[in-house]
Amino acid sequence: MNHSIPQLILNMGKQAKAAALKLAVCSTGDKNDALNAMAEAIKSQTERILSANAMDMAQAEKDGLSAAMLDRLRLDKKRVASMAKGVDDVATLPDPVGEIIREWTRPNGLHLQKIRVPLGVIGIIYESRPNVTADSACLCVKAGNACILRGGSEAFHTNTAIAAAMNDAAKTAGLPNHIIQLVPTTDRATVRELARLDKYLSCIIPRGGEGLIRAVVENSTVPVIKHYQGICHVYVDETADFDMAERIIINAKCQRPGVCNAMETLLIHKKIAGRFLPLAARSLLEHKVELRMEEDGLRILAKTDLQKKYASQIRPATEEDWSLEYLDLILSIRIVDSIDQAIEHINAYGSSHSDCIVTGNRQAARRFHAEVDSATVYHNASTRFTDGAEFGMGAEIGISTDRLHARGPMALEELTTYKYLIHGAGQIRE
Amino acid sequence: MNHSIPQLILNMGKQAKAAALKLAVCSTGDKNDALNAMAEAIKSQTERILSANAMDMAQAEKDGLSAAMLDRLRLDKKRVASMAKGVDDVATLPDPVGEIIREWTRPNGLHLQKIRVPLGVIGIIYESRPNVTADSACLCVKAGNACILRGGSEAFHTNTAIAAAMNDAAKTAGLPNHIIQLVPTTDRATVRELARLDKYLSCIIPRGGEGLIRAVVENSTVPVIKHYQGICHVYVDETADFDMAERIIINAKCQRPGVCNAMETLLIHKKIAGRFLPLAARSLLEHKVELRMEEDGLRILAKTDLQKKYASQIRPATEEDWSLEYLDLILSIRIVDSIDQAIEHINAYGSSHSDCIVTGNRQAARRFHAEVDSATVYHNASTRFTDGAEFGMGAEIGISTDRLHARGPMALEELTTYKYLIHGAGQIRE
Repeated sequence: MNHSIPQLILNMGKQAKAAALKLAVCSTGDKNDALNAMAEAIKSQTERILSANAMDMAQAEKDGLSAAMLDRLRLDKKRVASMAKGVDDVATLPDPVGEIIREWTRPNGLHLQKIRVPLGVIGIIYESRPNVTADSACLCVKAGNACILRGGSEAFHTNTAIAAAMNDAAKTAGLPNHIIQLVPTTDRATVRELARLDKYLSCIIPRGGEGLIRAVVENSTVPVIKHYQGICHVYVDETADFDMAERIIINAKCQRPGVCNAMETLLIHKKIAGRFLPLAARSLLEHKVELRMEEDGLRILAKTDLQKKYASQIRPATEEDWSLEYLDLILSIRIVDSIDQAIEHINAYGSSHSDCIVTGNRQAARRFHAEVDSATVYHNASTRFTDGAEFGMGAEIGISTDRLHARGPMALEELTTYKYLIHGAGQIRE
Repeated sequence: MNHSIPQLILNMGKQAKAAALKLAVCSTGDKNDALNAMAEAIKSQTERILSANAMDMAQAEKDGLSAAMLDRLRLDKKRVASMAKGVDDVATLPDPVGEIIREWTRPNGLHLQKIRVPLGVIGIIYESRPNVTADSACLCVKAGNACILRGGSEAFHTNTAIAAAMNDAAKTAGLPNHIIQLVPTTDRATVRELARLDKYLSCIIPRGGEGLIRAVVENSTVPVIKHYQGICHVYVDETADFDMAERIIINAKCQRPGVCNAMETLLIHKKIAGRFLPLAARSLLEHKVELRMEEDGLRILAKTDLQKKYASQIRPATEEDWSLEYLDLILSIRIVDSIDQAIEHINAYGSSHSDCIVTGNRQAARRFHAEVDSATVYHNASTRFTDGAEFGMGAEIGISTDRLHARGPMALEELTTYKYLIHGAGQIRE
């Protein structure tokens, strides 16, 4: 490396900004052709990508990474093919750029158009999964943005091979150079420099754990779109259909417990707790879920055979439990006096991500929808649907827990901004 | 003050968040009634506000503030009445909250609604003008947000009187308490504490000079919507109507030179520079504008009587001039080879605020609209129209130079976010 790190990042920023200005006016057809070429390049360079990955894997094994980490890092032919297919799929999505969001004419004859345009340059800072390189880059390009990727050190060789294949293919297909740049070192100082690059970066999207996100936010003068944890709730109201409630609870907790839209806390209306809690608990316990609850809940279960049968899976809950994202087969359960208390609990302890009411009462559903202050509020459906693909947005780059700009699943539209085009005939301001 | 400053700001944040949750579900009618009551309270407490202002003015005079600063700070009956009218006017604007931005049904029957909701709690950090207190607070309330106001020390007593009148009136009218809170000290540490209050604040909007904005951004973990400078351009293309171009130039530069949407640099196509520059320069010089230009421009003026007649107003431009926001009767002028060079200049030196092309060529206008990377791009109209009221948005809280969330004039809609309401019938994820 000849450059100092600040100089390196500054140069990357300049190159990205110049590329972004050109990419912003490329046609949808040109972008799609380039995306197909990028997918093709990933496929045709499978061997090269896999040998880069083998280097990363060898080092990771030497470094004693956990089995889960190794699995996240590992690529094979099938995974590379699926990565390429993801890029091809993005080519088929509608292009958000150029949409006329609104247009109107003022009394003085000025005609205004609010149109959708790319954000500009997006920084993506992420951890070990190398598929983030391809996923993020193709979404950025489709929405007309240049990107600067800063991946984790474990996946460095793999990321370099993927990013180079994609950028070269895009350039050969006629898009400007430097639309996809991977930071060529994983020195920690690069994160800090990116976070101060407000002259060139429109925003940073960190993709990783809370520690990573906090580290970026702490020093950033660039706006950061944050994807914090999901402390998601299901509230079973007094008029809930028990079968439906049980189905939703099992799905929200057990289908994939390690993700942000999985349920962490179950709230049950006290009027039905005596009947519904044993029913739900049995099913959850059979699904190997550990249950944590207060005295009232424990008392209800004590009257059943569950307490004995699943003693090791039933524990008292503490105040702390209401704020925990277990990401595991653990569930806290609270019995509430009313829908008011349920809403209050969710707004106090939740993370404004995804929360659900199961109820047969439309009025209760309306209140829950209006008063729960979360990005995604469900009536009678699993919280697991909070996802770009499930929402019909095509791919997603993440699920924002921010309120500004993008909230909930972020896809192509959320990677754009707007500008005003004003058409006059010589108007001046009085 | 019994509290430490961190404790004080934390408490204000908690109170604001609780108020915001309640305000988010108040009806438009309730909010409008409260706004009318707030306007009425400002009017009926005119004497109290004016005596608070007299205290601030006396201190400011003792401190030797400039005449311009004193004028910004000074209130009189007319200014208080106009402040109250501003609040009443906001009551007449449409309520953005509750709008269904989009709704659709997925193949599995899930029905999704993307609806507009308040941002939550907004921090406003501002300098000396006390009318910002009333303007910001009423816009926040109309859009369903609680606000924490941190005004400048010069206007402390005035701001306190205005904010108390408004919050009390809102509470009496039935809105939750604490929707409008003024930080009760102007200790500098309060700015830093607000900037770290990401648990409760959705965003901070600093209203003031670049120094203030940078100070907030530097330490902030709360998203900041920035209103930086306006380095605005008018480009006179080869096919421009000279009369129209002159009218737009004089308006953009002279009507109110101290504001962000005033022109700072004039670009002229070389093919018409020999004829148009003397014409435009004469009019600008007569309007007392100092002109800064390169050799080629100076040579053109040397052939006219202008160089002698207005010697003191004509100067050479340096590279530095292209990046200056004069906010004064000073204009830099550059002769460019082509529309490409004009666009390149604007994208390199401008601040992505407001830029204009004067041309009779539709193709040129289309290119300028597409390729100039600014929030507001004009064809044949003065840059001075970049303003919430001129755009038909009613009042404005500022003009964002950010790309995320809000770009250009910010009014009620820009003080909102969205959430997804999902209506199911027991769907679970496969």
